[in-house]
Amino acid sequence: MQRYFIQSEQINGNLIVIVDQDYHHIKNVMRMRIAEKVEVCDENQNLFLCVIKEINKNNVVLETLEKLKSDVELPTSITIALGLTRGSKLEEVLRRITELGADGFIPVEMKRSVVRIKDEKNSKLERMNTIVKEASEQSKRTKLLSVANPLKLDKLLDNLDQFDILVYAYEDLKTNSLNKFKNIIPLFKGKRVLIIVGPEGGFDPLEVELLNNKGFIPIGLGPRILRLETAPLYIMSAISYELEL
Amino acid sequence: MQRYFIQSEQINGNLIVIVDQDYHHIKNVMRMRIAEKVEVCDENQNLFLCVIKEINKNNVVLETLEKLKSDVELPTSITIALGLTRGSKLEEVLRRITELGADGFIPVEMKRSVVRIKDEKNSKLERMNTIVKEASEQSKRTKLLSVANPLKLDKLLDNLDQFDILVYAYEDLKTNSLNKFKNIIPLFKGKRVLIIVGPEGGFDPLEVELLNNKGFIPIGLGPRILRLETAPLYIMSAISYELEL
Repeated sequence: MQRYFIQSEQINGNLIVIVDQDYHHIKNVMRMRIAEKVEVCDENQNLFLCVIKEINKNNVVLETLEKLKSDVELPTSITIALGLTRGSKLEEVLRRITELGADGFIPVEMKRSVVRIKDEKNSKLERMNTIVKEASEQSKRTKLLSVANPLKLDKLLDNLDQFDILVYAYEDLKTNSLNKFKNIIPLFKGKRVLIIVGPEGGFDPLEVELLNNKGFIPIGLGPRILRLETAPLYIMSAISYELEL
Repeated sequence: MQRYFIQSEQINGNLIVIVDQDYHHIKNVMRMRIAEKVEVCDENQNLFLCVIKEINKNNVVLETLEKLKSDVELPTSITIALGLTRGSKLEEVLRRITELGADGFIPVEMKRSVVRIKDEKNSKLERMNTIVKEASEQSKRTKLLSVANPLKLDKLLDNLDQFDILVYAYEDLKTNSLNKFKNIIPLFKGKRVLIIVGPEGGFDPLEVELLNNKGFIPIGLGPRILRLETAPLYIMSAISYELEL
């Protein structure tokens, strides 16, 4: 069933008013009619089964039939900070980590990033939020990942209070290190975790020093060299595997 | 360092003759010169450090300096059979599962596949093998994944002798099932494993029955619905995480 993400202020008693893009999607893309059913999820992860009551000129009115139970979110809050790179790669990673249950995404300009922040337009944020919505609807999530505007690494490191556990993926890490990813994931349960993945050229040694000084834990992702686009998917898959399967 | 995959017949004593695409790559793409070094890997996973001795009109002659040790391959042999879909999606999955250590890839036409085999040209196999070579060089693998021509599900099920363990990813599986992926991966060690991932619309119920009758083990991949392109990456990441980290 089609799922839409709304703000709780759109709910009025047992009625929900759908406007803008979602209105367009119900009316013109899905061509739904009165009495058809949809699922609606608000920002507090309340999920409702609804029926279409009215299709008006500028909105669709839904009636809630039932509050649904859903338990599809990871038992931890993961934010992936990824070395800034081309928009198409950022979007691919964003789509996949949304499917895989991440809660946040921060493109970070690092020394070896092939793209600089001035190249990034703010309009991309809107596009990225659309990707998140689509991927969340398709994967049946009840929570929308939050996308940040690209920022420089030092700005990110000045605002770490919102995270309980800090991690970075370090390809030069020997696999027999003490900080095995396998030992660390169980600690993520119920915590807010920030995981940084470096840009194409890897971290600069000064950045590694900076991360270590800030208390970031380095983790290795196995013996093969993973691309920037693959590493976040490995990380999210491993977390789901460890905590959900 | 640049890595090339060769056949052992190209080795003659301590000399290796490089021709065709790799010759072109060394001479014209990398613009390498005599005395520069490359790594070369044969089909038996022998890895050599070599130095360029001659750059001729149709070939490059390398001298082996040293046999290198490399232990980057998964301790199991995984073949992913994926519901036939658009070529761009197949290629993306192929590139990523190569990075993640898979040994085989088989596009399989199933009842709900959006693409049919007659649409597929054989020339695609060459392109796919190029993708495998590139991804293997980049991820520093010593083994080349083998790509099969697309085939129908019943053809695949007639040729299962080459596999020790048969698995399929089943999205309708309840997560509290006995056949947890987590319980099954440890059994993969040293075995040849076939894992089938269904097409966009999922398996047809008759196909599920067929797989169950053939002894395939159904596995679930967590509570969120994963796209066809994401499921194989989740599977390969989970296997690496369980067996290598």
